[in-house]
Amino acid sequence: VTGLDATPNGTSGQRSASVRRSNLTTILTSLHLDGAASRSDLVARTGLTRGAIGVLVGELVDRGLVVEDPAVPDGNPGRPSPTARPHHADNVVLAMNVLVDSIAVAAVGLGGTMLAVERVERPRARRPLDETVGQLVALTDAVTASLRGSCTVHAVGVAVAGIVRGSDNMLITAPNLGQEPVGALIRDALGRDVPVEVANEGDLGALGESRRGIGREVTDLVYVSGEVGVGGGIISDGRRLTGPHGFAGEVGHVPVNPDGIPCNCGAVGCWETEVGEDALLRRAGRDPALGPAAIESMIVAAQRGDSDACSALDLHGRWIGIGLAGLVNVFTPSLVVLGGLFQRVHPFVAEAVDRELRARTLAPAHEGVTVAPSALGVDASLIGAAELAWEPVLGDPGALPFRRGALR
Amino acid sequence: VTGLDATPNGTSGQRSASVRRSNLTTILTSLHLDGAASRSDLVARTGLTRGAIGVLVGELVDRGLVVEDPAVPDGNPGRPSPTARPHHADNVVLAMNVLVDSIAVAAVGLGGTMLAVERVERPRARRPLDETVGQLVALTDAVTASLRGSCTVHAVGVAVAGIVRGSDNMLITAPNLGQEPVGALIRDALGRDVPVEVANEGDLGALGESRRGIGREVTDLVYVSGEVGVGGGIISDGRRLTGPHGFAGEVGHVPVNPDGIPCNCGAVGCWETEVGEDALLRRAGRDPALGPAAIESMIVAAQRGDSDACSALDLHGRWIGIGLAGLVNVFTPSLVVLGGLFQRVHPFVAEAVDRELRARTLAPAHEGVTVAPSALGVDASLIGAAELAWEPVLGDPGALPFRRGALR
Repeated sequence: VTGLDATPNGTSGQRSASVRRSNLTTILTSLHLDGAASRSDLVARTGLTRGAIGVLVGELVDRGLVVEDPAVPDGNPGRPSPTARPHHADNVVLAMNVLVDSIAVAAVGLGGTMLAVERVERPRARRPLDETVGQLVALTDAVTASLRGSCTVHAVGVAVAGIVRGSDNMLITAPNLGQEPVGALIRDALGRDVPVEVANEGDLGALGESRRGIGREVTDLVYVSGEVGVGGGIISDGRRLTGPHGFAGEVGHVPVNPDGIPCNCGAVGCWETEVGEDALLRRAGRDPALGPAAIESMIVAAQRGDSDACSALDLHGRWIGIGLAGLVNVFTPSLVVLGGLFQRVHPFVAEAVDRELRARTLAPAHEGVTVAPSALGVDASLIGAAELAWEPVLGDPGALPFRRGALR
Repeated sequence: VTGLDATPNGTSGQRSASVRRSNLTTILTSLHLDGAASRSDLVARTGLTRGAIGVLVGELVDRGLVVEDPAVPDGNPGRPSPTARPHHADNVVLAMNVLVDSIAVAAVGLGGTMLAVERVERPRARRPLDETVGQLVALTDAVTASLRGSCTVHAVGVAVAGIVRGSDNMLITAPNLGQEPVGALIRDALGRDVPVEVANEGDLGALGESRRGIGREVTDLVYVSGEVGVGGGIISDGRRLTGPHGFAGEVGHVPVNPDGIPCNCGAVGCWETEVGEDALLRRAGRDPALGPAAIESMIVAAQRGDSDACSALDLHGRWIGIGLAGLVNVFTPSLVVLGGLFQRVHPFVAEAVDRELRARTLAPAHEGVTVAPSALGVDASLIGAAELAWEPVLGDPGALPFRRGALR
């Protein structure tokens, strides 16, 4: 009996390519998410050996993804270690978000650096998809004008307020459920031969807050965002919950008041009928058609102590809390992030939300959860779209070509 | 520039131990879940080479986990391949479930073979935990009596109707939220030096159906089970959703009727207030204190066409559907499995459940989901408990000792 405790013949070699890929991913992801690092830092972060890290960082440098700053003697014995950092100026993704009230495009460098961003407000209206795609192209021209010539645009990530099928980036438009190949439309309009990944705005808001926002330290969070409708996304055990088809996380249509108010989706008493913008304005005796301007004037009134505004907000908080209680019992997240309208009204609803959560969630779940407003605001899903676009690059950095002039 | 496309020095070697462990896990898990296999079958199932598989299976044989049946010439060219199968008679876990109406212990062999099972009904009553532990020990003595002397009991898995903290197997008992170290109590009472893993009954029901029941072919399922209360569990992308503390999936306490009926948990209008056993008996004008016997007599009445019983069941189905609609919008599972009371009444509520799901879930989520009764019935969480107990063995088969007499 020999060799049983050593690596069985053939079982290591055949997976060495995947081990190397996995190690490149580990290093590049660490630099991307946690920032510049010396070799000693990378040893501590990844558990790989110093020698392996040297070789792997060298390959990432040769592929133009990482730059090493010269080592500075630090007074400690041994050869000082150069600092590796993501080469953000030469490696970019385009991030887009299409919200109900605005539309934005950003150029985001490797490591998360926002190199340029353009956002325009749009009055609410039903628009042909062509018009939106045209605006995205114009905004893209503006953000890419400042990028340097050596820059590679690796991919495009798009966050849309709608249901997106994961397998083919098909936007399934409510309420008539027509289907639009929005990813292909954007790629063709941009005239760039790069992958375009599309996902739901709520899912990418959750991803943005998890990677770059208030959720960086937690593995389990629920992101909920109010506008006219209510979107959301879930990070569970560090992973985006997408469901088998890509459209999980439709928290706005969880029934909370089954004999209540008809919803745009055709059902009755969905959470968004109680916590969307219309519901809040109706509760305050204001015209829902006035939209965000009416919300702002109501908030001013509440700040002055207007009792109608305050009680409308408190009741709104009650219903926010009721819906959240269900999600907290199901997911027991460490963090609930409030975005959009929920972020705007947070100071006025926090007490009611907490009251309902305490009453309606099992004690261990309630003890483990914090509710907090978004750190990234309207950019949450834009930043999440950038992270979505980076995923294939981070997943296989060795698939990228060597850069001319980058070879050592 | 040399060696950049080869494995960088040191990056393969340092992970070879983990690659070997991962390959052993792959082979043993395949035999455990998908059954006996020739080497050719294993090549197809795992993507590993035939040579590697020979070495890995050899190690599993030496550790007593796998037996190889002699090769039978099959008329094809080349050396015929022996068939490897899990050595179920010599490798066993104990599975236990503690339900409201019954308690069971099983000896489950590697590969899922149920070698022995003992279940006893118990009248409903609050009992000291000691009494339950004593019954589990007595049932264990009965199921282990028939095991052969060479058999190793690797671990114990326990499903309990209660909230279980994952980090320390602590049962957090509602409603007073005392804490009981149920895993340690059972281990001490058994007098066996084996790991005891405890989890919530609904979570393990989901695991059981996913690995051995109606959910074998899907990656995303929601399991919901009615008794007095309502439990559930979620499999998302093939993984058990536990949340960061181990007690996610408390679907019974999602608010569905916030101004409705007070719940045992202290809240109002939790799903279980509308779909638990009490609610059904109340709707049918029967005494909730009569419990399962009254449910059975009501079902007999419905089978005869009794209109009170039928309309109570239809209304019950409506509320089952309302709660499921929220879960389907959030998880977009391929399958919803109905266990316990929901399984019992399934023929009488299926139409109402489907009606509510169609009305209250977004069309793409509704199109992708099937609702079906449990395949495993009262044993779902017992079988899930066995799978929980197998996880450490499957995760690191190479950590087990060589068996005397097993060395080739």
